Amino acid sequence: MKQFLLLFLLMMVLTNQTQAQERKRVREYGIKIGVLPTGQLNAITDVPGVQVGQVTLNKGKDIRTGVTAILPHTGNLFQEKVPAAVFVGNGFGKLAGTTQVQELGNLESPIILTNTLSVAAGMNGVITHTLQQPGNEKVQSVNAVVGETNDGGLNDIRSRHVTEKHVLEAIQKARGGAVEEGNVGAGTGTICFGFKGGIGTSSRKLPASLGGYTVGVLVQTNFGGVLQVAGAPVGEELEKFSFRQQILEKADGSCMIIVATDAPVDARNLERMAQRAMLGLGKTGGIASNGSGDYVIAFSANPGLRIPHEAKEKTQTVTLLHNDELSPLFMATIEATEEAILNSLFKAETTVGRDGNKVEALPLNKTLDILKKHHVIRP
Amino acid sequence: MKQFLLLFLLMMVLTNQTQAQERKRVREYGIKIGVLPTGQLNAITDVPGVQVGQVTLNKGKDIRTGVTAILPHTGNLFQEKVPAAVFVGNGFGKLAGTTQVQELGNLESPIILTNTLSVAAGMNGVITHTLQQPGNEKVQSVNAVVGETNDGGLNDIRSRHVTEKHVLEAIQKARGGAVEEGNVGAGTGTICFGFKGGIGTSSRKLPASLGGYTVGVLVQTNFGGVLQVAGAPVGEELEKFSFRQQILEKADGSCMIIVATDAPVDARNLERMAQRAMLGLGKTGGIASNGSGDYVIAFSANPGLRIPHEAKEKTQTVTLLHNDELSPLFMATIEATEEAILNSLFKAETTVGRDGNKVEALPLNKTLDILKKHHVIRP
Amino acid sequence: MKQFLLLFLLMMVLTNQTQAQERKRVREYGIKIGVLPTGQLNAITDVPGVQVGQVTLNKGKDIRTGVTAILPHTGNLFQEKVPAAVFVGNGFGKLAGTTQVQELGNLESPIILTNTLSVAAGMNGVITHTLQQPGNEKVQSVNAVVGETNDGGLNDIRSRHVTEKHVLEAIQKARGGAVEEGNVGAGTGTICFGFKGGIGTSSRKLPASLGGYTVGVLVQTNFGGVLQVAGAPVGEELEKFSFRQQILEKADGSCMIIVATDAPVDARNLERMAQRAMLGLGKTGGIASNGSGDYVIAFSANPGLRIPHEAKEKTQTVTLLHNDELSPLFMATIEATEEAILNSLFKAETTVGRDGNKVEALPLNKTLDILKKHHVIRP
Amino acid sequence: MKQFLLLFLLMMVLTNQTQAQERKRVREYGIKIGVLPTGQLNAITDVPGVQVGQVTLNKGKDIRTGVTAILPHTGNLFQEKVPAAVFVGNGFGKLAGTTQVQELGNLESPIILTNTLSVAAGMNGVITHTLQQPGNEKVQSVNAVVGETNDGGLNDIRSRHVTEKHVLEAIQKARGGAVEEGNVGAGTGTICFGFKGGIGTSSRKLPASLGGYTVGVLVQTNFGGVLQVAGAPVGEELEKFSFRQQILEKADGSCMIIVATDAPVDARNLERMAQRAMLGLGKTGGIASNGSGDYVIAFSANPGLRIPHEAKEKTQTVTLLHNDELSPLFMATIEATEEAILNSLFKAETTVGRDGNKVEALPLNKTLDILKKHHVIRP
Repeated sequence: MKQFLLLFLLMMVLTNQTQAQERKRVREYGIKIGVLPTGQLNAITDVPGVQVGQVTLNKGKDIRTGVTAILPHTGNLFQEKVPAAVFVGNGFGKLAGTTQVQELGNLESPIILTNTLSVAAGMNGVITHTLQQPGNEKVQSVNAVVGETNDGGLNDIRSRHVTEKHVLEAIQKARGGAVEEGNVGAGTGTICFGFKGGIGTSSRKLPASLGGYTVGVLVQTNFGGVLQVAGAPVGEELEKFSFRQQILEKADGSCMIIVATDAPVDARNLERMAQRAMLGLGKTGGIASNGSGDYVIAFSANPGLRIPHEAKEKTQTVTLLHNDELSPLFMATIEATEEAILNSLFKAETTVGRDGNKVEALPLNKTLDILKKHHVIRP
Repeated sequence: MKQFLLLFLLMMVLTNQTQAQERKRVREYGIKIGVLPTGQLNAITDVPGVQVGQVTLNKGKDIRTGVTAILPHTGNLFQEKVPAAVFVGNGFGKLAGTTQVQELGNLESPIILTNTLSVAAGMNGVITHTLQQPGNEKVQSVNAVVGETNDGGLNDIRSRHVTEKHVLEAIQKARGGAVEEGNVGAGTGTICFGFKGGIGTSSRKLPASLGGYTVGVLVQTNFGGVLQVAGAPVGEELEKFSFRQQILEKADGSCMIIVATDAPVDARNLERMAQRAMLGLGKTGGIASNGSGDYVIAFSANPGLRIPHEAKEKTQTVTLLHNDELSPLFMATIEATEEAILNSLFKAETTVGRDGNKVEALPLNKTLDILKKHHVIRP
Repeated sequence: MKQFLLLFLLMMVLTNQTQAQERKRVREYGIKIGVLPTGQLNAITDVPGVQVGQVTLNKGKDIRTGVTAILPHTGNLFQEKVPAAVFVGNGFGKLAGTTQVQELGNLESPIILTNTLSVAAGMNGVITHTLQQPGNEKVQSVNAVVGETNDGGLNDIRSRHVTEKHVLEAIQKARGGAVEEGNVGAGTGTICFGFKGGIGTSSRKLPASLGGYTVGVLVQTNFGGVLQVAGAPVGEELEKFSFRQQILEKADGSCMIIVATDAPVDARNLERMAQRAMLGLGKTGGIASNGSGDYVIAFSANPGLRIPHEAKEKTQTVTLLHNDELSPLFMATIEATEEAILNSLFKAETTVGRDGNKVEALPLNKTLDILKKHHVIRP
Repeated sequence: MKQFLLLFLLMMVLTNQTQAQERKRVREYGIKIGVLPTGQLNAITDVPGVQVGQVTLNKGKDIRTGVTAILPHTGNLFQEKVPAAVFVGNGFGKLAGTTQVQELGNLESPIILTNTLSVAAGMNGVITHTLQQPGNEKVQSVNAVVGETNDGGLNDIRSRHVTEKHVLEAIQKARGGAVEEGNVGAGTGTICFGFKGGIGTSSRKLPASLGGYTVGVLVQTNFGGVLQVAGAPVGEELEKFSFRQQILEKADGSCMIIVATDAPVDARNLERMAQRAMLGLGKTGGIASNGSGDYVIAFSANPGLRIPHEAKEKTQTVTLLHNDELSPLFMATIEATEEAILNSLFKAETTVGRDGNKVEALPLNKTLDILKKHHVIRP
């Protein structure tokens, strides 16, 4: 009996510890973002065919970085490109591949996210991956799309620990299903609203009357502003926000936003959807500060829109949504972006990194109290 | 005694009527938007030299339209241009003058807001005004900047009731000081979030440590989405938002946003400020729907940056803020835009117009109750 | 017999006068521009369905202006829009309608060209035309695309002699077939390379192996630089070019360029074609000077790409050229633009206008001598 | 005597060989491009402070590639940035660093040109260079601007022979003075108009009355079209041009164009200058084909416009040219670009590379004959 009691107590302790570590996604706390329903996983992978692979570099005292790869489909991306667009929310960043996506309206490689000084490693990984793929033996030109945010606060970024190998590994690990969030992949060392940021994801599935399409978003959060959670002034009430002490806190950082959809939309309308993602960022309190590299890459994974690298015909017949049908997709993009950013904050954990720098996770208990006070969570 | 009672009752009635009409600005209800202090008037006219003039056409059953003119300074705008930029949030609109502002980085005329089919009247008014101004006798080219939203729901827009005369009148009436909001000028017939929209304004004054600059915003609101007031889900709780019945409600419409500042910023950084205004729109629940003409025009009224039409020297010496100093101005732009939009809704009144169409004002009592529930207003 | 001689002499004189007036198109002088064949008329109207209508205002001493209307097809343009794009070569101009074309990728009205201060009249004409068309009874929003160049050197532009009536007349007069060039319509008072400019047109028809598509261009020329005709340095040898006397000659002015095609290309690729037109302008010696409003509007008149204003279906199936097929269309655009500009110069006649200002036509005999010397024309 | 004769014959042979190899710049053949005078060296290095360094990889049978570095000034570029802009002529290319230059209006690194699959190596080189520079010990973010064209026709591009080491070497070798042209640096393996392309440069110095400023251009030429030399139809007469056999010849390829000036112009006006460079490309017969990565990077090396990385003051006082003064700079940019491209062709030599692929140099004798026939060179 005594032993049983001890065992019980031990379980309690373990459970508590687990609970302490097991931070949940916003929706699991009863926080609802927007008015549209989510997809099944509430993740970018709700868009059929989309895969995510992540490599986390969390080594020694100084390495807190990684790679996140997003694949629009499971085939040969170079041979079967997808319609795509880029919108620049604020261009203090190093996103590679922008102009070709904008000119040709397509994406021919996995999208890689990593840290600021490792974009070159990301490009080399994408190029090696593409050159090696069966069927690409004659390829001499690859437009690698590689985004980044700066994790130099927690990571020894100057030493460029991410290598081509890590990028290839992230691509190879890519799969559908649930996506790991928080301190993972390219989000391992990022900071958001003064708290630990990271990778987050969310999705929306439109009702059939609005087309039934899915929009999925994945973010790498590393930016500042005045945090709002479902509208509630969490940043203010936690007394942690940009310019609070007027010049002490900086708002800088960046946010990479990937928007995927199965809706049949071309590059022009994907660019419009991409632009809307910034409204979702704004709703979390982000201000797209001067030092921010805020980029949105949007693509359609709709199988009917694949663009062959070498077409047999001079023309391609495609079925596309009318402009008029875009508004629900805009709303879905805004909502999923807002929720993906919040998920990155809710899931990210307190981290100590380079030079002993420590960044606290968003304090969940205090945050939930604030949300209750503001009736975001039913008290 | 009886007379006294009658007088008392009469006063009650009048007071009620007055109360019914006297809708206040959001801040007067204790609603605080953002973290930065407002300017003295909490209006675009807090930026020194900026003037606003409005002409309201509210005639008969079918005319609900008007003109709002914004003047960057009180001098000859053609001879002393101001640095300016335009950002297109969504381009389903007829804003005249965009490309010249973008190319040359300056504004040489009053900004006119009116209805969609009266942009030509706006241009003629600006041209006549400019040609007639002393000193402009040889002017042969005027870039009239004229924006619009579509008030065709309440206004007989096809008959084009706004004329050049009204535009000239609005320019002539322009002055500093408090700005009338709600159903006035170019906002006379507009609809926002399903409620009566209109003209709104707000400003922010940065603390001295952040530069001490003022940012003022004026909006003409005519768009849809899911209304949030200081983050609280007012649209949802009032059961009035875009796509609620999935296809019944449309989100279309437009928002014209004018951003003025006295900060010494050039066209490039004004464009960045303009882009931020859309984040403020997003925070009110706007989605920049397909049918929206969402444009932001930003200018600097800083006297040191005036651009002479015919320069005596080949060069001009200017003192400009570094990029690094822009983030507080971005935050100010976002906050002032959000509040200006809300002011337009709080001040606008129920309107019956074309074909007996009726658009209700935002129901204040219900809204305030929701805001109390969500602790936006201290209960 | 004597009478016969007199008659003969009279005929000689008349013939000479006629000859003096009858300036021909460049190709009639044996001047070949580029390597691709022209369409049948060597005009924008070679693109099936495209129509042009012009109204010339050549009155008294001071009125030298007009209107040129280009209609993408003969139906109801508002109800059946066409894919379109705008490229801004230099934005010192007042082109109305730009942002909506860019956002939605379509054109819903005739394109109107006129003078700088008459853009509002152009808009009113387009709006009236559209509102009055059968089937448009409920239309409340029209995106009028109205371009201009400044004919203030020869025309009393400040008095705004172009009215809505002239615009409606130009639209009504629009038809296929040969297009009048030189001092006509919106080109009545323009100046180009220091000589009389005007309206010009040209086309290219790709060989079947390159798709067999037609590209037609119409220009309104009013700009400066150093004139080259088929590469020959005509401006230099005539000692008439911008900055020759270093500060005496100005290069300012503008060029409106309309590009039509029957190729099945969407707005994104039309924008790319539009951008190429500026290379054609460059080949004539144009420099897109600071004061130039150089705009290219491109549209596809391909019947399979018509965009219904109110679609019955949520999607539209279209057959589009692959990016890879665009290069010949780019080349065709460049060549047709170059030749259209030259045609405007070759056809325009010496004009005396406002305040007795006189602008000489390009001196044909001297020009042809130069072209012979440079072996452009076989000597 | 006999010996003397032999010596004489030997000299003749050597002289001939030397002549065969010593291809000259266009101006040395009496070919004049445009109307403005060149700078002293007729090179980008005529702009004070600008330096160029090149590393040529010409190894074995398959390696024909290299690196060209352009340094805006001789100091620490990261700590003293220069105003800069990018214009995209056609975006089928991999230029790194675009968006940050466009957003912030500055350049903080050397510009590197190399081959398509070595952009990552270029970035790593620039990052290493910057991190190692004294004073940059705390730098955690570098915007490496790295352009490319595809030399895969002559170079074993898939093996990525360019390494970070070559990039660092090119930066270290950078100096003022004459610039090597033709088969050198990033131009080692390029093809232009079907002939061997390469690196070319030219400059213009405005007369004092137009400001006296210098504009220098450097190009890496790898594109197609219908070659014109000073307007003469060289491509046609050599029967070598794009689409001649309609589908046999492709026009694809790319052109990187670097524009430097000492004129006091900000990023906005630098972007306008950059846009004009494409007109110069057009004048050589380039068509900016679908497969072209045509990019222009423009910067001002004016010492008064240096932008400190960490400013002591919140503002900076700068003296800038008025918009009105830009036209001569536009003309200078067009002329220098045209001549730089032609220099690259005139100086490049016949090359055999990967898989024995041979690309002939522009045949000088035939070309000069054509130019004489067309009176470009006085016969």
